[in-house]
Order: sequence, then structure tokens, then C-alpha cells
Amino acid sequence: MSSFREDGAAALEWVADYLDRLREFPVLAQVPPGEIRSRLPAAPPEAPEPFAAVVRDLDDKLMDGITHWQSPRYFAYFANTGAEAGILAELLIAGLNQVGILWRTSPALQELEEVALDWLRQLFGLPEGFHGHIEDTASVGTLAALAAARSAAPGRRVVVASEHAHSSVDKAARILELELRKVPVDAEYRLHGDLLDLDGACAVVATVGTTSTASVDPVPEIAGACEAAGVWLHVDAAYAGAAAVCEELRPLLAGWERADSIVVNPHKWLATPMDCSALWTRRVDAFRDAFSLVPEYLRVTEEVVSLNELSVPLGRRFRALKLWAVLRCFGREGLQAMIREHVRLAGEFERWVADEPGWELCAPRHFSLVCFRREGSDEENEALLERVNAGGEIFLSHTRLDGRYVLRLAIGNARTTEDDVRLAWNVLRREAGYAPS
Amino acid sequence: MSSFREDGAAALEWVADYLDRLREFPVLAQVPPGEIRSRLPAAPPEAPEPFAAVVRDLDDKLMDGITHWQSPRYFAYFANTGAEAGILAELLIAGLNQVGILWRTSPALQELEEVALDWLRQLFGLPEGFHGHIEDTASVGTLAALAAARSAAPGRRVVVASEHAHSSVDKAARILELELRKVPVDAEYRLHGDLLDLDGACAVVATVGTTSTASVDPVPEIAGACEAAGVWLHVDAAYAGAAAVCEELRPLLAGWERADSIVVNPHKWLATPMDCSALWTRRVDAFRDAFSLVPEYLRVTEEVVSLNELSVPLGRRFRALKLWAVLRCFGREGLQAMIREHVRLAGEFERWVADEPGWELCAPRHFSLVCFRREGSDEENEALLERVNAGGEIFLSHTRLDGRYVLRLAIGNARTTEDDVRLAWNVLRREAGYAPS
Repeated sequence: MSSFREDGAAALEWVADYLDRLREFPVLAQVPPGEIRSRLPAAPPEAPEPFAAVVRDLDDKLMDGITHWQSPRYFAYFANTGAEAGILAELLIAGLNQVGILWRTSPALQELEEVALDWLRQLFGLPEGFHGHIEDTASVGTLAALAAARSAAPGRRVVVASEHAHSSVDKAARILELELRKVPVDAEYRLHGDLLDLDGACAVVATVGTTSTASVDPVPEIAGACEAAGVWLHVDAAYAGAAAVCEELRPLLAGWERADSIVVNPHKWLATPMDCSALWTRRVDAFRDAFSLVPEYLRVTEEVVSLNELSVPLGRRFRALKLWAVLRCFGREGLQAMIREHVRLAGEFERWVADEPGWELCAPRHFSLVCFRREGSDEENEALLERVNAGGEIFLSHTRLDGRYVLRLAIGNARTTEDDVRLAWNVLRREAGYAPS
Repeated sequence: MSSFREDGAAALEWVADYLDRLREFPVLAQVPPGEIRSRLPAAPPEAPEPFAAVVRDLDDKLMDGITHWQSPRYFAYFANTGAEAGILAELLIAGLNQVGILWRTSPALQELEEVALDWLRQLFGLPEGFHGHIEDTASVGTLAALAAARSAAPGRRVVVASEHAHSSVDKAARILELELRKVPVDAEYRLHGDLLDLDGACAVVATVGTTSTASVDPVPEIAGACEAAGVWLHVDAAYAGAAAVCEELRPLLAGWERADSIVVNPHKWLATPMDCSALWTRRVDAFRDAFSLVPEYLRVTEEVVSLNELSVPLGRRFRALKLWAVLRCFGREGLQAMIREHVRLAGEFERWVADEPGWELCAPRHFSLVCFRREGSDEENEALLERVNAGGEIFLSHTRLDGRYVLRLAIGNARTTEDDVRLAWNVLRREAGYAPS
């Protein structure tokens, strides 16, 4: 195993060095489509190559095609963090190479997954009675929840969600052949409760922290309507659910404890490396109805519900270990400190925009996402964003609100400092100064 | 970053030591349900803990709940390997923490994924014209393929597969609300071609290497029928597809090059750590029809089909890097050597069983899986398996063929030697000697 130790030391040093130098890289990859492919051999090698060759090609051929999600200056989509504890946990996970197809194929995987999700439930202040497991992404979790909702309400074929719900809801509805009824939003981009129509509905998806603006649907009102009509409530809090570790932010999540299922992504705002999406439900039986299948070759003597009976995949990685490592190495206090700082920084940025002539805020801010734009046309704003991202100093993304092109600054990287946010603002102002018109 | 380097060195040494000592652990975890959970704190920590505490608890609390898939004496289900190159690649993957939601969020991820899958296609001798991407498991890949098939054939709602097809086909059909028509198998557990009925079918799933016996459906015959009827052919070669790296085994896969979609799991028999399931298709457009959604916040200027448009998840990890590392560090020759040795060892074991009075072989062997049983009742065979697995020296699983309880010995770990297989046989004979009656 000496080469494993040597190769491992080199890989570890590579990662350590990378994390030390995060601010040196262009945040958004600057290569054109096909560039990386063109650098790679068209055919596989015949004879074995040393691992050092992989690391060398990572540097020489691949790094130009990396968009640096780990950069403190990544502000696009929902910024995230692969924290050190989670990175090293992935090494342990791969070393153990657990394949959780059944409880017995890794009791530690299944029980740690359930315990880690229960820890997270407690950190969020959610009540007991929820069972949690991990999916790779919120897309799969939402699909699983809506499949369970469909099986729990035969004959009802409508899913209701706001027009600002995530595209994964559209995708799940398409896969499940459910009609997606999109409810208009109010002036603050929240599902318009007065327009909620549950006729024929098997589920409502309420979003806490929409993708475009991090707006919050009126969950208590929706929960009341769902309870009255016997309709499944799924809460998509993929990004903003993490805020619940801070008591002062919990009012924004009011009502989510009444959901039948909830999705929160620790790989978004809880420092856990991709992939780790948490799914809780109070209705495990409905998930089993939708997914449980036990062929002879998976039959066991012990009476345990294996996690494969609650979702699409049969096998699962030991993802729980990285979540557990992050929760322990941050502790409640560390997670709270990170989230509070991100919310504070977003508040600072929001104030700078508000105070500067020629710029405007475009949506109320609740968490760590700021929606804003430069005065002028959509084309000018789009061109501004292109210039900003082409420079490589920072990376932002956009959305469209009321038909208008809007910029988004999302803070979510644990290494982001006020200086990084200040840099973003300076780059934006500088590039706006070069704008035509 | 000094603590990252120190913690990382400790984690690396932990994995190296683990790989050195794989034969020391009971292969199947010997804990009862709930044991691991009971050892873990019921509530999360308030203050941060050092990473060393995570490693310590892995040793003290979790290891008893690990079933050692990495053990050379793991012979259950389909044995696999998390090879060294793949383990270290996972460290790099987590360090970079790429989130492939769109091409631009990681051009290297998408282009390396496409190149690595094309390398694998070439290693298998499959023709050009297939586009490949990676799913977490074959369950998701099969779901995606059948969703694409459904969208390509409106009004046809039947999926046809043999009664020995994997339960993931049942699960996908349930999610997609397709009727699953199960075709009986012949005496060698292959889909009975004479009984194939494609009336109303949108897809046929042909299996190359079934889970119970690694039997091979008559793919050329099925492909001909599918082509004549315009029905989508999906080939599930999750385990046995890997055999195609050896030219002499390719005749067993004859006809799979005519499929509309193919699934092979490098995390099964190609030494890649969980999770890495390869999905190829000649009909990318049908996948796009089934899955593509581009909301405003995901709109980009470059004209590239992002991989999220071909399946359920929006985000994806940089899994390609570990597959690429394994393909390079083994090379074609290394993969061939591993697979040939596994097939040879399975042949040896098969011969030992055939030559020993009181034992019988239960299905033809093509790859590295042997189905066998001790003379006697199902109860005696089940009790035998329980004793064998309770000893911890080896781990096997079972299936049921023609109503009879049958043991399965699956060879698939790169570290397995003839001595390990000999040990398995000795343990089986020893425990059979203790059998009642």
C-alpha cells in the first residue's frame, strides 16, 4: 500500500493547496464549449498509468474547465461550501465503499443516516415524528415525495405550486404524469394564497426560499388549506431551510412543521459537499407504498425497513458520514455563525445597492440572496452580467422578475468575507461604468 | 489550513490501514438492528468538535456496523471494489466540490463525463453513436431510460421484461405507471423469446447478467423483435456489461449494440467506488423530450445541452473524475486481468462444487457468479447460509430458483485471491457438516 500512501499524500496536498489558493482562480470557467474535450485523449490507455498522471492532467488539462464553487467569490445560483470536514469524510466514505442496498449491507450507514437527519431536525427546531433520509439531490427527493403523495391519493392528479416553484417540481410532475397547476405570486413573489385551488390536488409544493428571489410562500395558510382538504404538503426549503439553525430566522419558516414532507439541502447552505439532500416525512408508510419492493434476492431475516424502500435508488453511498462530520465539526454554534454572517453580508450588500444612484433592489430580502439591477434595459443588464462574469473575479447569475432581467448575488460560501462582497460590488460598479448607452 | 493537512493525513492513514487489514474484519456486520444508533449521541453538539473525534468514533462506534464490501471475502449480491485510484479521486472530487447543474457550472465535469463514457464505450467494443452520462445508480438510469421510451411512444403503456429482470424495472414501471409484462424464462433463466409479446409495449428491458443467476437474455432475438415493432430496447447490463472489456466474453453480450439505451455499473465490476452507473443512449432527443426544462434562472448564452436535461437530477457531482482515474490507473489491460481472474476463480469454485458429493450447481455460469446449494431442504440451506454469514469469515447471499432456496457466490473484488475463494469453500463445507439432519 505504499503507493496508496504516497499517491494519497499528493492528492491531499493538492486539495490543501487548492483551498489555500481559491481566490487565485477565475471563478467562472473561461473556456469555450469543447475546449476541455479537445485536450483529452480520444481513446483510453492500454496499460496502467500512475495516479500522478491523473493529478498532473487535472492541473494541465482540466482546471481551466473548473468553475470554482469553492471560491469565496462565487455568488451565483445558490453558493455553497464543501467544508474541510466534509471533504475528508468523503475520503473515508470512498475508503469504506459502503453500498447501502439493505440495512444489513451497512447497518452503520442506515443508522447513522437516520441519526444525522434527526440531529438536523433538532437543529432546525422541527418536532419529533419526522423520519429523515438522504437523497442525492432535491430533484430526486421531490420526485419521491410527489410519488408518495400520488400513491396516497388515488385518482387525484394535480400538483399545486407557485409559478416561482423550482423546475424540479415541473420535472417530477412530468415524470409522474401529474398536472402541475401553477398559482400566481403576489407582489413579493409568494404563492398567492387567495388563488389557491386544491380541486383534484394530491399535493401542494410550498417553497421556503424560491430560486429566483428566496421568497417564502405563506406556509401556515397553505398548510391549513391542505389539512382541510386532506392534501399532501411538501415544503421545498432546499436552500433556506438551513436558516432554521438560527432561532431568529425561524419565523420565516413558520408552518413547515405541518408538512407531510420537507426537503433541505445540506449541500447548499450547510457546508456539506455535493451530494447531500435531506428529505423528512411524517408519512413513511406512503413512501413505502410508492417504492417498497422486496424480491427474493433482497429478502432478509431481520425486520428492518431498508432505506431503498423509501425512494428511487436501490443502492446508496455512505453520505451520512460527511453530514455527520460537518455537523460535529461545526456544531450548532458554527453553523449559526456561518449563516448569520451570510445574512449580515447580504444585508450590507443590499444597503450598498439601495444607497447608490442608478441601481435598484428588485425583491424583498430574507436570507442571503439579493436581487438587484442596474437602471437601464434588460440588454444592458445582461451585457453587464456577461462582462462581470467574463472577468473571472466574481461569478453571479440572473433571473427574470415581472419580465425584467435581474441580477442575483447569493452568499453561501463559508470562506466569503466582507472584503469578497465588497469586491463584488466594486466589480459591478466598475463594469457598469463601462456600459454602453 | 494546517489542521486540514493534519486531519487529512490522519484520515488518509486511516484508509490505508483499513485497506491493509481488510481480512481482519467480520465481512457481514454482526450487530443487531438499533445497536449502532444506541451508541450515538441523541442530540447534536453545540460547540465544534475536532475532526479527530469523528475518526475516533468511526473506530469505536461505527465500525461494528460496517459490512465490508471492500473485503476480498465479500461474495454477496454483486461483489465490487473501491479501487485506490477511485478512492483518491473522491478526495479530489470533494475538494473541488463541483456542482454540475449546467455546462458552465463545470465544463470539465460535463466534458470529462462524456469523454470517460466514450472511453468506456470503446473498451466495451460498442459502436459510435452512443452518448453516455453517469447516474448514481442503475435504478435511476433505468427510470430515465423508460421515461424516455414512454415519451417516445405516446399511448403505449407496457414495459416487457423477463421475470428475472431486476426489481428496479418494477420500481421504474410503478413510478411511471407503466404496466410491467413479465415474460417467463427458459430452463436457463433467460427471457423466453417464444413468449415475447410486444402488443402495446413502449419498451423491452433485456438483461445481460440477471441478479439471481447472471443469465443472459437472447438479446439479438429481442432486438430484432423490437426493431420490427418500433419498440425501445433497454439493456440492463449493470453487472455483466463490464465483461465486454474482454474480447473473449463479448459473444455473451451479442446484440447489445442494437439497444436504444444501455446501463452498466462501473461501481459493480469496474473497480469504481459507489456511485457510478453509466447510461448510454442512441436517442438523446427522447431523453431531452422526457426531461429537458430550462427556466429563466438556468438560461445561458452558450449552446450546449447540459446533462441535467437528460435525467432526473438537476445537480451532479464530479463522478467522472473517479471513473477516469480508474480507467487510467488500470488501463485496458488491468481491467481485463481483473475480470479474467474473477471468471477463472468462479470457474474453479464451480468445479469444486460439481466434484463434491452432496452439493449441486443450480444455474449455468457465464461470468463470475456461481449458483449452488447443498442437498437437502430449503430450510437447511437457509440455515447453512445463516451460519456461514454469522461467522464473519465470508459473506454470501441467496436467491430462489424454481421455488428452491439457492446460494450465490459472486466474485467481484479486485483483492480476492484463490486462497479467499478456497476459504469460502472450506467454510461452506465445514458449516454444512454441522447441519442438522
